[in-house]
Amino acid sequence: MNRPRPSIWRRFSSTSSSTIVVKPGPSKARHHAPISNDSFPHGYSLTGVHCGVKKKPSVLDLAVILSTSPNPTSAAACFTRNAFKAAPVLVSKDVLEKTSGRARAIVTNSGCANAVTGKQGLEDAWAMVKATDALLPKKLKSQDTNDTLVMSTGVIGQNLPISKILSGISSLVPTSLGSDFAAWERAAKAFMTTDTFPKIRARTFTLGGQTFRMAGMDKGAGMIHPDMGPPSDFGQLHATLLGCILTDAAVSPKALQSALTYAVDRSFNSISVDGDMSTNDTIIVLANGAAAGETKEMDERDPLFPTFRDELTSFAAELAQLVVRDGEGATKFVTVSVEGAPTFDDAHRIASSISTSALVKTALYGEDANWGRILAATGSVSLSTPIDPYRVNVTFVPADGSTPLPVLVRGEPESVDEVRAKEILSEEEFEVKVDLGLGSESAQYWTCDFSYEYVRINGDYRS
Amino acid sequence: MNRPRPSIWRRFSSTSSSTIVVKPGPSKARHHAPISNDSFPHGYSLTGVHCGVKKKPSVLDLAVILSTSPNPTSAAACFTRNAFKAAPVLVSKDVLEKTSGRARAIVTNSGCANAVTGKQGLEDAWAMVKATDALLPKKLKSQDTNDTLVMSTGVIGQNLPISKILSGISSLVPTSLGSDFAAWERAAKAFMTTDTFPKIRARTFTLGGQTFRMAGMDKGAGMIHPDMGPPSDFGQLHATLLGCILTDAAVSPKALQSALTYAVDRSFNSISVDGDMSTNDTIIVLANGAAAGETKEMDERDPLFPTFRDELTSFAAELAQLVVRDGEGATKFVTVSVEGAPTFDDAHRIASSISTSALVKTALYGEDANWGRILAATGSVSLSTPIDPYRVNVTFVPADGSTPLPVLVRGEPESVDEVRAKEILSEEEFEVKVDLGLGSESAQYWTCDFSYEYVRINGDYRS
Repeated sequence: MNRPRPSIWRRFSSTSSSTIVVKPGPSKARHHAPISNDSFPHGYSLTGVHCGVKKKPSVLDLAVILSTSPNPTSAAACFTRNAFKAAPVLVSKDVLEKTSGRARAIVTNSGCANAVTGKQGLEDAWAMVKATDALLPKKLKSQDTNDTLVMSTGVIGQNLPISKILSGISSLVPTSLGSDFAAWERAAKAFMTTDTFPKIRARTFTLGGQTFRMAGMDKGAGMIHPDMGPPSDFGQLHATLLGCILTDAAVSPKALQSALTYAVDRSFNSISVDGDMSTNDTIIVLANGAAAGETKEMDERDPLFPTFRDELTSFAAELAQLVVRDGEGATKFVTVSVEGAPTFDDAHRIASSISTSALVKTALYGEDANWGRILAATGSVSLSTPIDPYRVNVTFVPADGSTPLPVLVRGEPESVDEVRAKEILSEEEFEVKVDLGLGSESAQYWTCDFSYEYVRINGDYRS
Repeated sequence: MNRPRPSIWRRFSSTSSSTIVVKPGPSKARHHAPISNDSFPHGYSLTGVHCGVKKKPSVLDLAVILSTSPNPTSAAACFTRNAFKAAPVLVSKDVLEKTSGRARAIVTNSGCANAVTGKQGLEDAWAMVKATDALLPKKLKSQDTNDTLVMSTGVIGQNLPISKILSGISSLVPTSLGSDFAAWERAAKAFMTTDTFPKIRARTFTLGGQTFRMAGMDKGAGMIHPDMGPPSDFGQLHATLLGCILTDAAVSPKALQSALTYAVDRSFNSISVDGDMSTNDTIIVLANGAAAGETKEMDERDPLFPTFRDELTSFAAELAQLVVRDGEGATKFVTVSVEGAPTFDDAHRIASSISTSALVKTALYGEDANWGRILAATGSVSLSTPIDPYRVNVTFVPADGSTPLPVLVRGEPESVDEVRAKEILSEEEFEVKVDLGLGSESAQYWTCDFSYEYVRINGDYRS
């Protein structure tokens, strides 16, 4: 990071040059606001501290989350499918397998991804797990297995400064643990890399008349195009999306993994900042049954299970969207909806193709209603049932609820009102809707635009 | 194109702004130079004219190529797999099917893609075919079928100014046809859209002791990530890569299609400017047997066929690389070689993933030896045989033949000499080599970097 500024501004021999004046994008600060302490799930204790992975003195870089519920805590996770899985991904998967989905602690560091770090990397990740295990009261500890899942994010190919991290866990964390908004904020700040604001959300929900709570945090910014599967579907990846969701509902490990896998496909696996999949992407969910009176764990056959799964899905989507809003260089937040598809997978692949198209994303930045590029990105996906161009509709939908603007109707270009198009596209937020007219399945993706600032950030960052 | 400049420079309300000074990229002019008239294949007559699709008076926008060989002319083509295939793609496919691979003319316009233009678009494309058929001497014409293949490139969703095109074909083309370099140059200029130079190459080659000639032209610039198949594998697409290759060898239609399909997978289907696949991508090859004494057409069982196929492949790669060199905003020409893969398809998919990664491409622009991003892009592809991270090598290879720089050896990061890395990456041309250590297959891709200029061009172009 201390290397000299790359010479992209001065490497050419030509005599003439051009100047681009880039005004800063809209402020993202409004996406972070205090949350009432009552909204956070019971039975969790957490914090974020500065242990020294990051050089700047006051910047938080280590977070620990503990479930202190007397009831069993279930844990589930989805990990990156990248072939180059970082050490913390391999270790967390191992812990979850050995405990059959029981874990009650999460330790996370930012500043160093512990990826492509070989045997030393694995030893360091295990050391983080064991040091965090030791923070749990004796009566809550497992006998023969570990209780902690581990996540890392930051620079690839460097070893962790492990002694700083271990002394942070044992000496700084215990004295600063808490359960209020301030504690959540410390933890969420310790997740951040190129993020511009900490990402925290919380909500209450009811199941069978009883109230439960769910809260979560995540981080993103660049290398964001996750494709995460459950531990059983373990491939290989390098991660920059990290997130966790904590609830005080009581859910069996198997039901929790099933709900998370479903939710992740419709949330974190449906966002794109730059189309690049990381080696460390990890989403963890804990369910500790700490809500008053809760002892029996819900399983997949429970009639309330679909309600829980849908609640988790919509909450995960809310957290995932925060990552897009804070995407590197992003000035737009765009929902891409694909409807009328033969299958969810077809709709999802087309939404992904549109959301990652460099031509679509630069047009969004230029506020250009360029449906031709949207169509080209749609048509580049091959489906089981071929697309019939004469059934396809494309519509721009403003976020303020005013009249949508059709630009392509049954394959025929509309005579577009350019003033109205400009009005919709000049907003920070809107929706692009593509109806294939082939079936009844749909999927959504959330994406951002591609700006000069993205090029600047990534032409000069050693990840 | 006459719409006001988008407001990307002025839409934000914040008070502070930043300035990016972009010096122009290296001049591309050197990639176009005169070619000796002797190098062009015999028996072809061609030209480019201004008929009025483009508004500027002197800009060429209509090309016609005729095979005047007394021997039969074979034709083969690969078309985009995009679902939204433009009218000229549908019509050319129809002509080739009806003639079983016989055609002796090509008509091409730039300025309007004739894509998403419904029934009128098909009528217009057929009218171009018939008007060009009429230019052939009576004795060379087919009895019941057409002789012309058609290509278009430019803006999507607008109808062709067909009367201008038809009068261009019938009145301007006949008086300007020629066979020398100047005629080739006129035709290649009429192909151009955002290209900065006309793209023509020619070579001679020998088969069984006899000399033949091969020449070709193409155009690209943006929306370049072709995936083209033979007519039998016809999907749906919108094209911005157009090219044709003419030879005076005698090759049967079936052998010609087989050689072209093989060549396109290793050339035009192995380039990426921005990862976006067009609706009009088309590559056509004609073989007219006009070389002295040539009458018998080569078939696939001919022992010389592999030599011809490899010659066509290396020539197609040369033409394809010109498109990358002239990619929108490109300042670098980078060869991505993937070796040690289980299959060609595995190697090709990984090379594609690296070549389209926004993070890799911005790092190339920033001249940053960021092997972490290369690894993440490699690992995001799922293979039949899983990647073993501890067998992977990544090397930067300078174009000047000096010592390559290993950055990852058997999965372990090397201590990289940053000065040497900078030296290699500051050149306009170099190679990124990834060895998977899993097998013996390999594939190459050619890509460019992602620059401010790309964002500027595409934030302000209505395609």
